[in-house]
Amino acid sequence: MASYLITGASRGLGFEMVKALLQKPASEVSTVFAAIRSVPPPALEEVIAQSQGRVVVVKLEVSDEASIAAAANDVRDKLAGRGLDVLINNAAIASMTPTPLTAATTLQNAFKVNVDAVHRITVAFLPLLREGTKKTVLNVSSIVGSITHTKRFMISPDHGYRVSKAALNCLTSIFACELEDEGFTFVAVSPGWCRTDQGGQYADLDAQTGGVALLEVLDKDRSELNGKFVNIKVAGWENATGLHQYDGAEIPW
Amino acid sequence: MASYLITGASRGLGFEMVKALLQKPASEVSTVFAAIRSVPPPALEEVIAQSQGRVVVVKLEVSDEASIAAAANDVRDKLAGRGLDVLINNAAIASMTPTPLTAATTLQNAFKVNVDAVHRITVAFLPLLREGTKKTVLNVSSIVGSITHTKRFMISPDHGYRVSKAALNCLTSIFACELEDEGFTFVAVSPGWCRTDQGGQYADLDAQTGGVALLEVLDKDRSELNGKFVNIKVAGWENATGLHQYDGAEIPW
Repeated sequence: MASYLITGASRGLGFEMVKALLQKPASEVSTVFAAIRSVPPPALEEVIAQSQGRVVVVKLEVSDEASIAAAANDVRDKLAGRGLDVLINNAAIASMTPTPLTAATTLQNAFKVNVDAVHRITVAFLPLLREGTKKTVLNVSSIVGSITHTKRFMISPDHGYRVSKAALNCLTSIFACELEDEGFTFVAVSPGWCRTDQGGQYADLDAQTGGVALLEVLDKDRSELNGKFVNIKVAGWENATGLHQYDGAEIPW
Repeated sequence: MASYLITGASRGLGFEMVKALLQKPASEVSTVFAAIRSVPPPALEEVIAQSQGRVVVVKLEVSDEASIAAAANDVRDKLAGRGLDVLINNAAIASMTPTPLTAATTLQNAFKVNVDAVHRITVAFLPLLREGTKKTVLNVSSIVGSITHTKRFMISPDHGYRVSKAALNCLTSIFACELEDEGFTFVAVSPGWCRTDQGGQYADLDAQTGGVALLEVLDKDRSELNGKFVNIKVAGWENATGLHQYDGAEIPW
C-alpha cells in the first residue's frame, strides 16, 4: 500500500516508471502521483483512465518555488492523513547538442532544474515523507556526472549537465547522512542512456527497460542504497557498451 | 615574468596570495591582477603602493556577466599584447551558520558565485590564457566538497557550499580534459580551514599560511596537477586535525 511521487512523469523515464508501478498490485502500490508541468499528454491520459484512480496528476513546475509548495499541499490533501512513501526526482534538462564547457554560456539553468529543484522539492515533501513507511528518495542521476569517469564520458554532449549531476550526487550523499537516523534512504541512480526525447533515438535502451530497471533498484536493502550512486542493472547489457553502465554496481563519485 | 589574476583579492586567502606573489622576484612574477568587487581596502592599498606597479587592481563582480567581460577587456588592455599566465578562481561565498540541506531554502546563490562565476570567468579569460606561457587555472575548492568524505565533513556548517564545491570539482575535471591537448593545467585545491572572514577565528591555519601553501601547489609538475583535486601541504599539519586536510595529497572526489 505504498504511495509514490514521480517528477517529470509526462514522458520518458518518468512516464515509464508510472506505467511500471501500475503493473504492481494495488496492495503493493496504492497511488502514483504523476507530477507534470501542464496537462497530461494523450498517452498519460490513457494510463490514468485505466488506472482505477491509482494514478493521480499533480501539477508541478519544478523550478518554481510557489508551484512546489502548492504541489506539496495538493498531495497532502489527496493523501488525507497518510504519508508519502517514495519520492522519485526524475525531472531534468539536458541538451543533445554538443556543448563543451568552453562553449556553454551558463550553467545556471542546468543547476536550477537538475539540482536546486531537487533540493527544494525534497525539502517541501519531507514532512509527508516523514509520515510515510518507506522514507525513500530516488534521485535520477547519470554516470556522466561521475568525476572519476570524467575522461571516459567526454563523449557525452552536454558538459553543464554533467556538472549538475555531480552536484546532485553530492546533494544525495549529504541528505543521506542528514536523515540517516530518521530511517531515510537516499540513492542516486544512473539510468544510462535511454531512448527518450532527452536521450534521442540512438541511445542504448528503450525507455521502458530504463524505467523498469530504475524501480528495480529499490528492491535492494537499504544498507546497499543509502548514500550510494549506482547503475541500473539490465540483463545482457551489463557492459555491452564497454562503459559499465548497466551492471547494477556502485559508481565511483 | 609571469602574470597572475586572482579573484576575491581584497581579503582572506586571495589577499594573502597577492602578498605572497609579491615576495617573489619581478623576474618571476611580473604582474598580479587583484580582481576585487569595489575599492581596495586599506591593507590592499598599502600593498599596491609598495608593489612598484606589480599589483594592478581590476574591478570584477564575479556574478555579473557584464562585469566579467569588462574585466577581461581591462586586463587585455593592461597586458598590452602579452598573455595571462595563471588564473586563480578564489572568490566564493559560504556561511558559518549551521545550514543543513533540510534548512537551506536555496542553493542558487552558492552555485552562482562558486561554480557558474568560475565557469564564466574561465571562459572569458581563455583567449588571454591561451596566449600565456603557463596556461594554468587554479580553482580554490574545499575538501568538504569531496563526496567520498561526505560523512567525515558533516561537521562543516554550510551544506549548500559543499554541493557547490563538488560541482566546482567536476567543472575543473572537465575543463582539464577539454583543454588538455592545448597544454592547459586545471587543478582544484583545498586550502582546508583558514582564519579568514569566511573561515572565522577558530579555524586551523592563519590566512597567510593558507595563501602561501595554495601557491606552492603550483610548483608541482603538470602531470601531478591537471584534472586533480589536492590538499595544500603544510609542514607539521599533515594530519594534525585527524581529517587529512594538509598533507598535499590527492583528495578522492
